Amino acid sequence: MSQEAQMSVTPFDSPMMRDLLSDKELAGLFTDQAEVRAILLFEGALARAQGKLGLIPELSGEAIHRAARETAIDPSGLAAGTASAGVSIPALVAQFREEMNAPEHAAFAHWGATSQDAADTGQALRLKRLAAVLDARLAEIIAALGDAAEEHAELPMAARTRAQIATPTTFGARVAAWGAPLIRARARLARAAEGVALVSLAGASGNMAAMGAQAEEVARLVGEELGLSVPALPWHAGRDGLAEFGAALAILCGSLGKMGQDLVLLGQSEIGEVRAGEGGGSSTMPHKSNPVGAEALVALARHASRLSGGLQEALIFAGERDGAAWQLEWMSLGQLCVAAGAATRHAQGLARSLRPDGARMLANMDATGGLMMAEAAMFALAQAMPRPEAQALVKAACATAVEQGAHLRAVLEERKEARGADLGAAFDYSRHVGLAPVLAMRFAQMAREG
Amino acid sequence: MSQEAQMSVTPFDSPMMRDLLSDKELAGLFTDQAEVRAILLFEGALARAQGKLGLIPELSGEAIHRAARETAIDPSGLAAGTASAGVSIPALVAQFREEMNAPEHAAFAHWGATSQDAADTGQALRLKRLAAVLDARLAEIIAALGDAAEEHAELPMAARTRAQIATPTTFGARVAAWGAPLIRARARLARAAEGVALVSLAGASGNMAAMGAQAEEVARLVGEELGLSVPALPWHAGRDGLAEFGAALAILCGSLGKMGQDLVLLGQSEIGEVRAGEGGGSSTMPHKSNPVGAEALVALARHASRLSGGLQEALIFAGERDGAAWQLEWMSLGQLCVAAGAATRHAQGLARSLRPDGARMLANMDATGGLMMAEAAMFALAQAMPRPEAQALVKAACATAVEQGAHLRAVLEERKEARGADLGAAFDYSRHVGLAPVLAMRFAQMAREG
Amino acid sequence: MSQEAQMSVTPFDSPMMRDLLSDKELAGLFTDQAEVRAILLFEGALARAQGKLGLIPELSGEAIHRAARETAIDPSGLAAGTASAGVSIPALVAQFREEMNAPEHAAFAHWGATSQDAADTGQALRLKRLAAVLDARLAEIIAALGDAAEEHAELPMAARTRAQIATPTTFGARVAAWGAPLIRARARLARAAEGVALVSLAGASGNMAAMGAQAEEVARLVGEELGLSVPALPWHAGRDGLAEFGAALAILCGSLGKMGQDLVLLGQSEIGEVRAGEGGGSSTMPHKSNPVGAEALVALARHASRLSGGLQEALIFAGERDGAAWQLEWMSLGQLCVAAGAATRHAQGLARSLRPDGARMLANMDATGGLMMAEAAMFALAQAMPRPEAQALVKAACATAVEQGAHLRAVLEERKEARGADLGAAFDYSRHVGLAPVLAMRFAQMAREG
Amino acid sequence: MSQEAQMSVTPFDSPMMRDLLSDKELAGLFTDQAEVRAILLFEGALARAQGKLGLIPELSGEAIHRAARETAIDPSGLAAGTASAGVSIPALVAQFREEMNAPEHAAFAHWGATSQDAADTGQALRLKRLAAVLDARLAEIIAALGDAAEEHAELPMAARTRAQIATPTTFGARVAAWGAPLIRARARLARAAEGVALVSLAGASGNMAAMGAQAEEVARLVGEELGLSVPALPWHAGRDGLAEFGAALAILCGSLGKMGQDLVLLGQSEIGEVRAGEGGGSSTMPHKSNPVGAEALVALARHASRLSGGLQEALIFAGERDGAAWQLEWMSLGQLCVAAGAATRHAQGLARSLRPDGARMLANMDATGGLMMAEAAMFALAQAMPRPEAQALVKAACATAVEQGAHLRAVLEERKEARGADLGAAFDYSRHVGLAPVLAMRFAQMAREG
Repeated sequence: MSQEAQMSVTPFDSPMMRDLLSDKELAGLFTDQAEVRAILLFEGALARAQGKLGLIPELSGEAIHRAARETAIDPSGLAAGTASAGVSIPALVAQFREEMNAPEHAAFAHWGATSQDAADTGQALRLKRLAAVLDARLAEIIAALGDAAEEHAELPMAARTRAQIATPTTFGARVAAWGAPLIRARARLARAAEGVALVSLAGASGNMAAMGAQAEEVARLVGEELGLSVPALPWHAGRDGLAEFGAALAILCGSLGKMGQDLVLLGQSEIGEVRAGEGGGSSTMPHKSNPVGAEALVALARHASRLSGGLQEALIFAGERDGAAWQLEWMSLGQLCVAAGAATRHAQGLARSLRPDGARMLANMDATGGLMMAEAAMFALAQAMPRPEAQALVKAACATAVEQGAHLRAVLEERKEARGADLGAAFDYSRHVGLAPVLAMRFAQMAREG
Repeated sequence: MSQEAQMSVTPFDSPMMRDLLSDKELAGLFTDQAEVRAILLFEGALARAQGKLGLIPELSGEAIHRAARETAIDPSGLAAGTASAGVSIPALVAQFREEMNAPEHAAFAHWGATSQDAADTGQALRLKRLAAVLDARLAEIIAALGDAAEEHAELPMAARTRAQIATPTTFGARVAAWGAPLIRARARLARAAEGVALVSLAGASGNMAAMGAQAEEVARLVGEELGLSVPALPWHAGRDGLAEFGAALAILCGSLGKMGQDLVLLGQSEIGEVRAGEGGGSSTMPHKSNPVGAEALVALARHASRLSGGLQEALIFAGERDGAAWQLEWMSLGQLCVAAGAATRHAQGLARSLRPDGARMLANMDATGGLMMAEAAMFALAQAMPRPEAQALVKAACATAVEQGAHLRAVLEERKEARGADLGAAFDYSRHVGLAPVLAMRFAQMAREG
Repeated sequence: MSQEAQMSVTPFDSPMMRDLLSDKELAGLFTDQAEVRAILLFEGALARAQGKLGLIPELSGEAIHRAARETAIDPSGLAAGTASAGVSIPALVAQFREEMNAPEHAAFAHWGATSQDAADTGQALRLKRLAAVLDARLAEIIAALGDAAEEHAELPMAARTRAQIATPTTFGARVAAWGAPLIRARARLARAAEGVALVSLAGASGNMAAMGAQAEEVARLVGEELGLSVPALPWHAGRDGLAEFGAALAILCGSLGKMGQDLVLLGQSEIGEVRAGEGGGSSTMPHKSNPVGAEALVALARHASRLSGGLQEALIFAGERDGAAWQLEWMSLGQLCVAAGAATRHAQGLARSLRPDGARMLANMDATGGLMMAEAAMFALAQAMPRPEAQALVKAACATAVEQGAHLRAVLEERKEARGADLGAAFDYSRHVGLAPVLAMRFAQMAREG
Repeated sequence: MSQEAQMSVTPFDSPMMRDLLSDKELAGLFTDQAEVRAILLFEGALARAQGKLGLIPELSGEAIHRAARETAIDPSGLAAGTASAGVSIPALVAQFREEMNAPEHAAFAHWGATSQDAADTGQALRLKRLAAVLDARLAEIIAALGDAAEEHAELPMAARTRAQIATPTTFGARVAAWGAPLIRARARLARAAEGVALVSLAGASGNMAAMGAQAEEVARLVGEELGLSVPALPWHAGRDGLAEFGAALAILCGSLGKMGQDLVLLGQSEIGEVRAGEGGGSSTMPHKSNPVGAEALVALARHASRLSGGLQEALIFAGERDGAAWQLEWMSLGQLCVAAGAATRHAQGLARSLRPDGARMLANMDATGGLMMAEAAMFALAQAMPRPEAQALVKAACATAVEQGAHLRAVLEERKEARGADLGAAFDYSRHVGLAPVLAMRFAQMAREG
C-alpha cells in the first residue's frame, strides 16, 4: 500500500471513528485487500475447475489456483485501470497474470469469465462470512436479552406510550420487546444470506457463452470449492437477492435502533431507569452519562434505511449489465454491512450490561400521583357500582387530585362511595402489569431455543 | 361522504392519474372507508370472542358483532377526533357506539383493547388481501413471461452491457432475466405476508393487562374469525414484519422496474427491438410510441425504494407506542402498497403483449459490422494458430474494419492466415448465444411449476 | 366528479386524517380540479398572447381565453387518456376543445405548445400560491416564537445535551433556537419560489420550434398575465429549481421537526416543562397529554426528507423529456408541498400556545442535586485556590454527593477548603445561563424585523 | 498512522476505486488528519483570541496557537476516547495538551469551549475549502460547455422525448440544457457555502455561558483569523445551513447526472452520436466504448440524493445537542462532499472532450423515414389547404410510409394534393430546429459572463 494518508471520508473507514461507528472486524471484509483476495480465490477455483474438466490445461489450472492464494497485489496500483474500465477486474487480472510470471499458464486465468463473475463471486464470499459473524453476534445479543428478560420479568416499570407514562408493565416485557424482533432478524438474515452466497459465472453476456456445454459443471465445481451455491439461472442482472440481504440488514439495524432509542430515553437525567454500557462522561458535567452506544444504534439505523433503498433502486439494472446501477450498489452495500456490524457490536455491549434501577422506576410511577392507576381504580370501584358511575367518580377524583396536587388514592379514599373498594390492590403496580411477566419469560424461553 | 372535492395530492389518489400511477382495485383497500370497515370487523370479532368467553355479556358481544357489519360510518366525520387523538380509533369507536343506539351493549365495544390493536388488526386484514391480489397478478405475469421465454428461446438479439452491444444472446434469455426475480419476489411476498397477517391485541401498554388471563384466548378466537395468525409476543412496538413486507414490495417494484427500464431502452426509436403495451402515440409525431407503462414501472420502483426506507426507519419506535414513528409508517405504507399494485398492473399488460422484432434485432447486430463477433472469430482462428496470434490478428482486423467501415468478416477473409478458419460459423449469431436458449426454457419450466 | 369513494391511499388525501397529517387549504392546490384549472389558465393566457401577436386569429385567442376560465372539466373523465399518453394534457385539451363547442376557435387551443409546457406552467401557478401561503404562516409562527422568546427570555431551564441535563439555559433561548432556522427557512423558501414561478413554453423538443421568432414574445405575454417569470433558457429538462424548492420545503419541515421533537421530549410525563397545543387526552389514562401535533412535526419531517430526495433524483432527466423522471417528480412533489402545509399548520398552533412550567423547570434542575452546577462551583472555588485543586475538590464532592444522595452544595459547604467561596452564587441557576437572555431577545428583535 | 490495512468500506475511501468514484483532492479534506488539523486551527485561534482579550494569559494563548499549528497527532490513537465520548474532541484535546508538554499553558487550551464548537468550526473550515474547489471546477465545466454549445450551436440532431425521436434540435441546445443548471448550481453552492462557513462557539449548553460578556468578541476574533463568519445566533442545534449545503451538492450531482445519463444514451452502440472521455474498452469486445465516467455521474447523483435526505433528517436535533442526529450528519456529509467532488471531476473530463458525430446524428434522423418531420410537412401543406385536411393527408401518408417502408417525403410527393407544397424545406432538419441555435449561443454567452 502506498504511503499516502488513510482516506476516511466516512466514519466507516475512519481509524478515529472506528470504535464508534465502524467495526474493525467486519470492515476488514470490505477493504480493497479483502476484495482482491476474494476475487483471486474465485479465479483460483475457476481455473482448477476448468483444469479438471479439460477446458484449460490441468497444469495451468493448478498453477493459477496456487498463485491465486499466494500472490499479493497492491490494490492502489489498480486505481488507474479501475477508473478506465469502470471495474477493477481487468486491471487485477492483468496484474495477477504478470505476477504469476508464467505466461503459459497465466493466459488461462479468468478464462471465459467476465469481470462481473469475479466481482460478484468475490463479494458473495465476503457476504457469507459477514452473515456468519452477524449471526453469532445476534445469538449472543438474544441470549443476553433472554437472561435480562428472565431476571427482570416481574420488575415493575411504567409503560410509555406517545412519550407519556401509560400504565405499569415490567422491565422484562420491555426487554422482550427488544429481543423478539432480533430472533426474527436472525432468521431473516440467515435466509437472505442464502440468496447472496451464490457463485456468479455467466460470462460476458450472461449466458455462459464462452464455456460451452460444461459451463454449468464449472460453476458447480467452483461453488463446491468456495462453499457457495449455484443458482438455477444467472443473476448478473437479477440482483434482488442483494436487495433482500440489504433490507434484512437495515431491518436488523432498525430493530436495534429501537433498543437504542429506548435506552436513550430511559437514560435521560429525569428518568434514569436503565443504564447500559459505559456512558460517556463529561469532565465538566459529572452528572452526565452520555448514552453514546445507544445513540449510535439510532443513527446507524436511520442511515441504514437510506442505504437499503439504494440497493432496491439498483435493481433497475439496464440490459445485461448496468454500470451506473452497479456502482450505486457498491456505494451502498459495503457501508450497510459495516453499519450492521457497528450496530451489533454496540448492541452486544449494551445487552450484556443492562442495569435497571428499580427504585427510579417506582419513583417515576409514584410521581404520577396515582393517576396512572386511574383505570385500575375505576375497575375496582366498578365491582360495587355501575361502570359509568365508577368512571364518573374516578374522573372527578382525578381532576381533584391534579388540582390539589394530591394522590388519587387519597382523594378516592375520602369519598364515601368508594368505601369497600380494594383501593390498595388498585394502586399496587405489580398487580397491574398484565401478562408482562409471562411475555418476558416466554421470550426468555424463545431466546434459549435460539 | 361530504360533497367536497376529491383530494388528490398524490397520483395514488388522483382519479385522473388513476390508471397511470395508481390501481383502482388495490387503492380500494386503502380508502378511509375500507379502513373503517376493517376496524369494525376487528371490533366485531373482539366482542364476539369476549362474549363467548364471558368477559362481556354474550348478548352484547353478538350485538356488537352484528352492528360492526351493518353500521356505516362516514370517515370524514372523524377528522376532528382523529386530529385530536392522533389516531382515528377513539372517534370511530365513539361514533360506532352512538350509531349502535343500544348503550347497554355499546359500552362493551372495544372492551380492553387499545387504539393500536384495532388499527393494526384492521390493517392486517387489508394487507392480507393485498398480498393475495398481488400474488395472483404475479402468477399471471410469470406465466406470460414463461410463455414468451419459451416462444422466443432461440430468437437472437444483442446483449447490452454498459449501454453497449456486447455479444449475442436470445430474447428468451432476456425474458428469463425479467421473470426469474419475479418468481423469487412472489415467494418473498408470500413469506412476508405471513409476518403481517397478524392479530394485534395487546392493550394500552402492550401487555394485555385489561383482559386478564383470558387475553390470549380472546386473541386466538379473533384470529380464527378474521383469518389472521396470533403471534407469540405482541408486536405493537416490534414492527419488523411490516418493514419486511414493505421491503418485499419495494424489491418487487425494483425487479419490475428492471423490466420497464429494458423495455424503454429496447423501444427507443433507434433500437426498436421490442414493443409492449399500447404505447402512447403523439398526434403530431406519428413515429413515436411512448413507452408509458414501462416508464411508470421505473418511476414506481424508484419511489418505492424511498417509501420502504421510511418503514425501516419507523422501526425506531420509542417505548410502548411512538406516535411519530407510527405516523411515518402511515405515510409510507399505503402508497407503497398501491405503487406495487400499479406496477403489477402495468407489468401484466406489458408481459402479455411483448412483441419482439426479430428483423430489427438482426439489423442492430449487423450494424456492428461484425465487431461484436470479434471474440468468436478469434476462437475460430485459434483452432489453427496459437491464441495470442489469433488475438493479434483479430485486433488488427478490427482496427482495419473500423477504419475502412468494412465488415470484420470481409477483412478477415482477405487475410491469408485466416484461411481455413470457419468464419461462417464465427459470424453466425445463433451459434454464439451460449446457454441462452437453455436458460430461457429452464425459466419457462420454472414459471409453469409456479 | 364520479360517485366513487374518495381515494385516500395517503394521509394527505384522507378526509379522516386531513387535520392530522394533511392541510385542507394547501391540499386544495393539488387536487385534479386545481391542476386542470391551472392548466386551462395557461391555455387561456397562451391563446390570448398568440392572438395579440397574430400567431392565431385574435378572435380565437379571446374565445379560448374566455372558455378557459369558464369551462368545467371532470378530471376523472381524463383517466383513460392520461394513462394512454402518460400525461393528462392531450386528453384535457381534447376535452376542452370539445366543450368549447366552437371548432373554428378550438383548433387554435394549445397551439404550438407541448404537454409539458401546460403541465409545468400550471404547476408553477400553484407552487407560487403555495409559497405565498407558507410564507404567511411562517411569518406568524416566527412572530409567535419571537413573542415567546421575549416573554421567557430569562426563565431558567436545564439545557439538555445528548439526552442528559447539562447546565442551565433559559426557555427563551430554546425558543430562539426553534425560531432562528425558521427565519432562514422563510428567506430560503422565498428565494426558491422564484426559481419555480416560471413560464414553461418550449414546445415539443424544448427549442420553441413551433412558434417561430415570436415564441419568446409569447412567453413574455403569458408570464405577464399569469404573474410568472420567463427564464433565460427553457427548463423542460433542467429541473433544479424544483429540486431546490423541494429541498427548501424539506429543510423547513426538518426545522419544524426539531421544535416538534423538543416539545415531545419536554412534554414527557417525567419532565413536563412545556405544554403546547391541546394534547390528545386518553379517556382511560387521565394523566396523559399526548403530544399529537408535535409528533406530527417529527413524522412529517422524516417523510419530507425522503420526498426531497426523489426530486433531486428526478434531475437525472433523459434527453428532452424523461417520462420516468417526470413521474417520479409527480409522486414526490405534491405530498412534499402538503407535508410542509401540515407542518406549518401544526406549528402555528403550537407556537401560539406554548405554556412553559417554570416550577417544573426548577424542580428538574434541583433534582440533579446540584451536580449540574459542578462546573460553576469549581469556578467559584478557583477564585481562591488553583484551578486543578478546585477541580479535584469538586470531583470528590460530586462523588460523595452521588454516594450519599446529598446535594452538592451541602457537601461542599462542609469542606473547610470551600469556605469563603460564593457557593450561593454558584448554585443560583439564573446566574449561569450565559448569554441566553441576550440571545432570546436578539431573536425576538429579528422576528419583529421579519 | 498505524500499520493496519487501509479501511475502504466505501468507494470514497478506496485507493482502488479512488479515480472512479472518489476524488483524491477533496477526499483529502475529510481524512482524520485533516479533521484533526482543522480542529487544532480552531483551538489555536480560540486561545489567541482569548489571550488577546485577557480571558486567559496572553502567553498561554500564543503558546497554544503555536502548538496548534505544529503538533502532529495520530488520529488512530484517539479511537478509544472517541468511542467513549461519542465525539473525538475530548481525547484530541487531552492528547494535544499532553503533546504541548507545557501544562501551565496547556490548561488553557479549549477554554470555555465545548466539543461541538471545535468539531463544527473545524468542519466549517473544510467545507469552505471544498466549496472553493467545487466552484473552480464548475467554472471550468461551464466554460467548456459554453465553448461546445457555441461550436455546435447549429449542428442538427434529433431531440428525444420519452426515449423516442421527437423533432430536430441542435447539439448546441442539448449542451446548453446541460450547462444552464450548472450556472445555477454554482450560484446556489456559493450561497449555501456562506451558510456553513461559520464559527461555532457557544459552549456546553449553546449559550456561551463559560466566557461571560466577552464571548461574542472572542467569536469575532476567531472568525477573523479563520476566515469564517460569526452568525447572529449559535447554530449548535440549528443545522439548516448544513442541510442547505448538502442539498446544493445533491442538486449539483443531479444536474451532472442528467449530463451523464444523456451521454450514456447518446453513446449507445445503436445511437453513437456523442463520445466523451476515454471510454473503457474491452479486450474481447473491440466495438465497445464503455461510458464509464458518464455512468459514474448517474450513480453518484442517485447516491447523493439519499445522503442529502440524511442531512435534512438530522435537523430533527433534540435539545441543545443530539448525539444520534449529529452522528447521522457525520455519516452523510463527508461522502456527499466527496461524491460531488468525484462528479465534478468526471464532468470536467467529459465536458472538455465532447465529440459529437454529425454524420450519425443525420443518419439517425434519416432512419425515421421522414416521420419525424410529419408535423413540418403538415405545416407546409397547410399553406395551401385547410389545416384539418393537411393533417388528414399527412396521417394517411405516414401510415402508408410505415406500411411500405417508404420515406414520408416520397409518399407525399406522389399525392397530387401535395403538389406545390415546399416539401424540400419541410424535410430539411436544420430549418426545423426552432430557436435551438439561439438558445445555444445565449448559454455560451452566459457561460462567458460566469
